[in-house]
Amino acid sequence: MATSWEIAAKTKREAVLDLIPKEWRIQPPLPPAGELRDVTGSYIQQFLSPREIEITETDTIGIVQRTTTGEWTAVEVTKAFCHRAAIAHQLVNCLHEIFFEAALADAKRLDAYFVEHKRPTGPLHGLPISLKDQFHVKGVETTMGYVGWIGTFEGDKTDPRRFELESELVRELRALGAVLHCKTSVPATLMSGETINNIIEYTWNPKNRHLSCGGSSGGEGALIALRGSAGGFGTDIGGSVRIPAAFNGLYGIRPSAGRIPYLGAANSMDGQISLRSVIGPLASSASGVKLLLKSVLSQHPWLYDPLCVEIPWRSEIEEHTLDLIQKSSSSQGQLAFGIMYDDGFVKPHPPITRALQVVATLLQKLGHKVIEWKPPSHATAAELASTIYGLDGGADASKQFGLSGETMMPQVIIPNPPVPPKNAMEIAAINIAKREYLKLYMDYWNDTAASTGTGRPIDGVIAPVAPHAAVQPMKYFYVGYSAFVNTLDYSSVTIPVTEADKAVDVVDGNYTPINDTDRAVYESYDPEIYHGAPVGLQLMGRRFQEEKMLTLAGYIGDELRRASGSWSPISSQL
Amino acid sequence: MATSWEIAAKTKREAVLDLIPKEWRIQPPLPPAGELRDVTGSYIQQFLSPREIEITETDTIGIVQRTTTGEWTAVEVTKAFCHRAAIAHQLVNCLHEIFFEAALADAKRLDAYFVEHKRPTGPLHGLPISLKDQFHVKGVETTMGYVGWIGTFEGDKTDPRRFELESELVRELRALGAVLHCKTSVPATLMSGETINNIIEYTWNPKNRHLSCGGSSGGEGALIALRGSAGGFGTDIGGSVRIPAAFNGLYGIRPSAGRIPYLGAANSMDGQISLRSVIGPLASSASGVKLLLKSVLSQHPWLYDPLCVEIPWRSEIEEHTLDLIQKSSSSQGQLAFGIMYDDGFVKPHPPITRALQVVATLLQKLGHKVIEWKPPSHATAAELASTIYGLDGGADASKQFGLSGETMMPQVIIPNPPVPPKNAMEIAAINIAKREYLKLYMDYWNDTAASTGTGRPIDGVIAPVAPHAAVQPMKYFYVGYSAFVNTLDYSSVTIPVTEADKAVDVVDGNYTPINDTDRAVYESYDPEIYHGAPVGLQLMGRRFQEEKMLTLAGYIGDELRRASGSWSPISSQL
Repeated sequence: MATSWEIAAKTKREAVLDLIPKEWRIQPPLPPAGELRDVTGSYIQQFLSPREIEITETDTIGIVQRTTTGEWTAVEVTKAFCHRAAIAHQLVNCLHEIFFEAALADAKRLDAYFVEHKRPTGPLHGLPISLKDQFHVKGVETTMGYVGWIGTFEGDKTDPRRFELESELVRELRALGAVLHCKTSVPATLMSGETINNIIEYTWNPKNRHLSCGGSSGGEGALIALRGSAGGFGTDIGGSVRIPAAFNGLYGIRPSAGRIPYLGAANSMDGQISLRSVIGPLASSASGVKLLLKSVLSQHPWLYDPLCVEIPWRSEIEEHTLDLIQKSSSSQGQLAFGIMYDDGFVKPHPPITRALQVVATLLQKLGHKVIEWKPPSHATAAELASTIYGLDGGADASKQFGLSGETMMPQVIIPNPPVPPKNAMEIAAINIAKREYLKLYMDYWNDTAASTGTGRPIDGVIAPVAPHAAVQPMKYFYVGYSAFVNTLDYSSVTIPVTEADKAVDVVDGNYTPINDTDRAVYESYDPEIYHGAPVGLQLMGRRFQEEKMLTLAGYIGDELRRASGSWSPISSQL
Repeated sequence: MATSWEIAAKTKREAVLDLIPKEWRIQPPLPPAGELRDVTGSYIQQFLSPREIEITETDTIGIVQRTTTGEWTAVEVTKAFCHRAAIAHQLVNCLHEIFFEAALADAKRLDAYFVEHKRPTGPLHGLPISLKDQFHVKGVETTMGYVGWIGTFEGDKTDPRRFELESELVRELRALGAVLHCKTSVPATLMSGETINNIIEYTWNPKNRHLSCGGSSGGEGALIALRGSAGGFGTDIGGSVRIPAAFNGLYGIRPSAGRIPYLGAANSMDGQISLRSVIGPLASSASGVKLLLKSVLSQHPWLYDPLCVEIPWRSEIEEHTLDLIQKSSSSQGQLAFGIMYDDGFVKPHPPITRALQVVATLLQKLGHKVIEWKPPSHATAAELASTIYGLDGGADASKQFGLSGETMMPQVIIPNPPVPPKNAMEIAAINIAKREYLKLYMDYWNDTAASTGTGRPIDGVIAPVAPHAAVQPMKYFYVGYSAFVNTLDYSSVTIPVTEADKAVDVVDGNYTPINDTDRAVYESYDPEIYHGAPVGLQLMGRRFQEEKMLTLAGYIGDELRRASGSWSPISSQL
């Protein structure tokens, strides 16, 4: 017999499905992953009209070029994305909340505004955007994957903010003219590289249904890869934007803390400030990600969220970076990159290593300097992050699961059962250790000025986001490749590079793992299963270098596509 | 019989005095405060040559105009300030460390550089600067007022950084060409509005030796008021820059956290990040303070201190503010200020109330809008700050006093004996409560746009720094007027306004105190004792508004002096 939390979860799961109009329901059950690996492209297209395909497969920038000029109406664009999001959810379980009706009503208002004023409401006029299920939207529930949050405000049945509060970012997106149509799936606690919870169950990778979509902004990654939204916002405290972006062939940024307003969003271990979770946009192009970040900054979030920092979008950095890029296309290399093939603890799988080689070769061919990145131990960075994730000893997670009595998923990297929390002196000591590590890393970065030949330190670091392309369920053994960036609070952008290919990405039979984690990761590689999985890398810059990193990521991504023959002008720099 | 810590303290105290050359020693003991209240001006001048007086009484800007052009040598300037600092210390006990010989050697090197290169080393070339005794200077001890730190590095006898480490700010000041000649007194723990410790004992207010110089950057306030340095750096976690600046007739800024590098400086409760101590400069003019801040920012501290934020000196904000000021001198008011006469918990003494009225009247006369500031409860802000100061339950203070067994001074606002520290969940809850308060304050500020008539929210808030001008020993009952700014992390600059005057600042016999603290403060006012004490106020702007606040503070200060007939062009805007 089902327990009460199982019933509550099932009821909620069905209620979400029921919000999908009948004519958008897929009737026969999907074939298993063994028969149907990839549901992107032609598979999902079969459910859509040619016009819907045209709209939803237009890049973020291409859409706003049409919606802000009146060429496309917000209603038509919104309808197309709602339809495609509905299909996407039925293919991979990527949505927590559906509010298509509200989205269409908003789109109608936007169209009316355009007709009346002959101009758009803002730079995102009519752009359908998805949100990770941490953001509060008026009239919509936020469960964050917890059964105990169903019918409550963050677990509290009596809190009057339920259905009323909108997160600051949501307010700003509306002011920019964006249309919000759905909220996407997360692992309960947010502390997992897979997306699983007791409500929506497991979100799969649309390019390869043997694999996870990543996490914790996993629903975002899956939905955008399926083009069910034109861009979206996730959060990242250990890789949660970059992992799903990389696993799904997308661009995504983890900005430094304080650029995008977090105020009024639900979170895990809220009030923990030793290592802050940050919000970052994901999209299918670097220019799309740039548009979303730049648009949010145009709203002066530092006047509305006390934790935001007054750093507007700095066009001068963007232009200076474009200048450096243009100079580099002449005779000699004007840019210098660090590249990290291996952090010394866990060796990445063959598809990742190949992707790193592809990028290094390309950069060198383009005339840039590439130096090996051998920074202060990333084990220290990962350990600091891990210690901070556990400051409360798991009390928050335990409390939230306890609301309904539901079972905690084994993928969650939180102490279970809880252990005693750290005290003020222990936390202060951790903050000091972190500061000292940051200083070492900073000095290492500064010191590269002596070896780049450009007169500057390196312009960015190319590194894996994870030791693998996507991940098989229950096999995310090592988050060190993403979490070190969170410890540093640096800016990092994912770049889609290639796909796993069983013909070339063969197992290295001669490799002897150097520790247990390394062994577990090594043994989890199966060329057959991984075949076709997107492979992304990250480009990391220093703190608050979002303008530079997005510009460089766009450049590298374009050059990669140009080199592989699939370059299209729509994805080029904004 | 003296205890061992008393002997160690006395030995250190005498060693500091012994570093003053014989010819600079004052022989007869000073008369008591009752006979000799004010040791500034003609009193201290009697010990100096006319040339030394000319140099040391030149404003910060005036000095660098001469030292960076070769008109004055660094050696002559440094000697004059060393002499005056030596006298100052003998008058009010304001120094912890004296290193005149090193300063002169540095000055010689600067002069040689100028001769060889025909240009200064940097914008602070040859400027003698004092540092609160939290900064590490090579070859110099740091006791921070703890007997247990004598002969150690921050209490650790074996730490190799002793005499070796230089704080990041010190490195930058040297790169800018500044000359460092002494470190100034602090209350042990830094958590006091008076400056007292068992080594140097009590630092007095040079304008009125009945009163404290303030704290915790009290030595800075006293020394700069006596012109023993041309500017200096203190720190502020509850008012510790602004209190001594206001009590000594100086300008001083509490910038938002992350503008000036704190890396490598000693601190209390290091690693506590819920409410960060910040470094701020003090000087006798707003332009001097501006020069110091702007110069430090020119060193790109965010590339060397991981907790600094990449916000360079923004000349465009400075220029925009000057524009607003210039427009206001035409017909109608272009600026709007909030004014806080009373925070609703403790009524300021008559000299403070009069100063507020003087400024309000002046601003209105200049055509500006002045509105009463009735923000979200400052009691909440003060309580948050106080809770955060006690997160470790007094463990750090207890440990440092315990090193030598010395007695804790009753003025220190730290739990004694220690109480249990807060845990991770309690700290997170405090961080959330603080964020919520910040949001309320931010919204209140935004909402003033509706009532200023300028189309903008208010440009700044004029408020007391303390309920009194300076303070009598053991009578600092309420830090709410300064600490709320630390809770907010706003930018705040002190402005000298007037002096306490027993003829006009009479006791309000009709006032009935509204609570015990209010009563204690009310009863501590004695027109006779306070007569002649400097009265300063603070001008507070939003977070990271240092450029605007310093520009406005310079303007208001100049207008005040112009109105009182003592305006001189040297103190005008840089």
